Amino acid sequence: MSGKKLTINDLGEFGFIARFSRCFTRNLPGGVLGIGDDCAVLPWKGDLKLLVTTDLLVDGVHFLSEKISPQDLGYKALAVNLSDIAAMGGRPRWAFLSIAIPPGTRIDWLDDFFRGWRQLEKKTGVRLLGGDTTRSKAGFVVNVAVLGEVRAKNLKLRSTARPGDVVTVTGTLGDSEGGLRLILRESENGRPGPEEKFLLRRHYRPHPHLEEGQFLSSQPGVRAMIDVSDGIDSDLRRIIERSGCGIEVYLEKLPVSPALEKCCAKYGWNLEEVAAAGGEDYCLLLTVAPEKFPELAGKFYRRFKRQLAAIGRVTDRKNQLIYLRHQKPVTPGKTGFDHFK
Amino acid sequence: MSGKKLTINDLGEFGFIARFSRCFTRNLPGGVLGIGDDCAVLPWKGDLKLLVTTDLLVDGVHFLSEKISPQDLGYKALAVNLSDIAAMGGRPRWAFLSIAIPPGTRIDWLDDFFRGWRQLEKKTGVRLLGGDTTRSKAGFVVNVAVLGEVRAKNLKLRSTARPGDVVTVTGTLGDSEGGLRLILRESENGRPGPEEKFLLRRHYRPHPHLEEGQFLSSQPGVRAMIDVSDGIDSDLRRIIERSGCGIEVYLEKLPVSPALEKCCAKYGWNLEEVAAAGGEDYCLLLTVAPEKFPELAGKFYRRFKRQLAAIGRVTDRKNQLIYLRHQKPVTPGKTGFDHFK
Repeated sequence: MSGKKLTINDLGEFGFIARFSRCFTRNLPGGVLGIGDDCAVLPWKGDLKLLVTTDLLVDGVHFLSEKISPQDLGYKALAVNLSDIAAMGGRPRWAFLSIAIPPGTRIDWLDDFFRGWRQLEKKTGVRLLGGDTTRSKAGFVVNVAVLGEVRAKNLKLRSTARPGDVVTVTGTLGDSEGGLRLILRESENGRPGPEEKFLLRRHYRPHPHLEEGQFLSSQPGVRAMIDVSDGIDSDLRRIIERSGCGIEVYLEKLPVSPALEKCCAKYGWNLEEVAAAGGEDYCLLLTVAPEKFPELAGKFYRRFKRQLAAIGRVTDRKNQLIYLRHQKPVTPGKTGFDHFK
Repeated sequence: MSGKKLTINDLGEFGFIARFSRCFTRNLPGGVLGIGDDCAVLPWKGDLKLLVTTDLLVDGVHFLSEKISPQDLGYKALAVNLSDIAAMGGRPRWAFLSIAIPPGTRIDWLDDFFRGWRQLEKKTGVRLLGGDTTRSKAGFVVNVAVLGEVRAKNLKLRSTARPGDVVTVTGTLGDSEGGLRLILRESENGRPGPEEKFLLRRHYRPHPHLEEGQFLSSQPGVRAMIDVSDGIDSDLRRIIERSGCGIEVYLEKLPVSPALEKCCAKYGWNLEEVAAAGGEDYCLLLTVAPEKFPELAGKFYRRFKRQLAAIGRVTDRKNQLIYLRHQKPVTPGKTGFDHFK
């Protein structure tokens, strides 16, 4: 690097946050949590904490406006923020939408965008309270901020995993990545079959695990929690970094949908890679005290009719994310999506 | 328009908000104020209200990244949001920054951006608690959200102007527009003189009138308040619309800086047009009960060493913004900047 000026490409997203967050996290008042988790946390009223999260979606980076329908974009822009509230065990309350719109955009595009947004508002009770609108010189830009609330005793963080904890997820992995791969090879495809439709829907209409997050955060033994936004490979590293631990993952235990299995076979995708490194599933990834896990998994199944699969274990080997296949270490072919690389 | 699909250009920003805000402002809970003012307002703790505002700045629309220094951009992105908090009489507390960064951006550009941001943080006590970072396919995009607080009894809105109120502003008008005009004709200029430097600084480093807003909101007789973001022509129309009134403006009373007067003479700009339609001054525009105005202006002068000039009067002629020059009606050559037109 000598003689050459560093750029954002050299830093990457993790490096960016490490470099610039330091001076902003010093000397915060008690009860305030700043940069470093899915949401910031502030004192709210009574025994409630206020949660704040924000996500920026850029045309050509996070979505392709010529591919995604405006309904799906409106729905998804809100969903990815609600998922951050879910990861803290919270209930979303208020949303703020900033949108930059290219000249010539048709009003019915905007009507449809808000139709998709409203569908998820109605399901979740969150309300749009404000925002900003402007024109764009390039594509669409959408920034959403959401305020939520959680009981102080139910608040879940990334930083509280302990060695021995069971690692688990609340949904199947890789479906959204499968949908994305289908979109990017779309021209080669014929009509999508039922499996393809399933994966595309999972990509375009992610379901934020709010009920799951609220349920889990109230249960004994649930320690660290995060949502799966960039793929478990990246998101597990965030738990590792914040909790000062290591994690081993059992590749054969990663829960995958029958639709993803079929499409992997059909299109020659590596199933483990898609499941471990694919992003945007927006289910929850959590660690649980081992002695509480069996009872929790039982309760979760009775409530949600889905398995809470044990996909790994927290270790005391700091900063080590290890993948095992039937107890043997393996090196995955691809790491999670890093926004700057 | 028949036979032609409407686009965002036909609607404009005012039309966009009118069309889409309706379904989002229905049936909000008591004590909650949604779309329609400088900030959203929520119940907070004790007798405090929580204020939330967000602004989206797009390269090529709100700033030119090849012209503005990264320090100034960092400072200004925060300043424009703090100005919205000032307009409600509030104190800013917490900030959230989303930034999309083009590949190849140098780290020292980012260091400088945060240096400028931190300068204003330190002056105002606001703290950065979170955000989002991503790459951009086009230019920089910066979205800032700020949370603030205000005592319920001091909260100032756009909707509370009454016929007979004096209209006044807390600073000089048009300086930022003057700075912008200098930037856009830069290639023709020689070295900037002291007047040019003054206007450029007012454009790049707007001073949010937080102390002024907090002082004014605690004084008797102050009714409606807004910050001057798009120029008083646009911002007065917002008061008119929300308060259901009219306003007449005395063009010869608009406060202008000596630097702007000199540059208008030097470059052939229309001084009244620059003052009335130029945006981004980020001072406060307010209406005051006429019987309270003289005492308020006196107190304001003693505290801030600046005149609180009476620039107009609220009338009962609904939706009418009338410009007068020495009591005679005139039609201004240009209206405020509308983001979509």
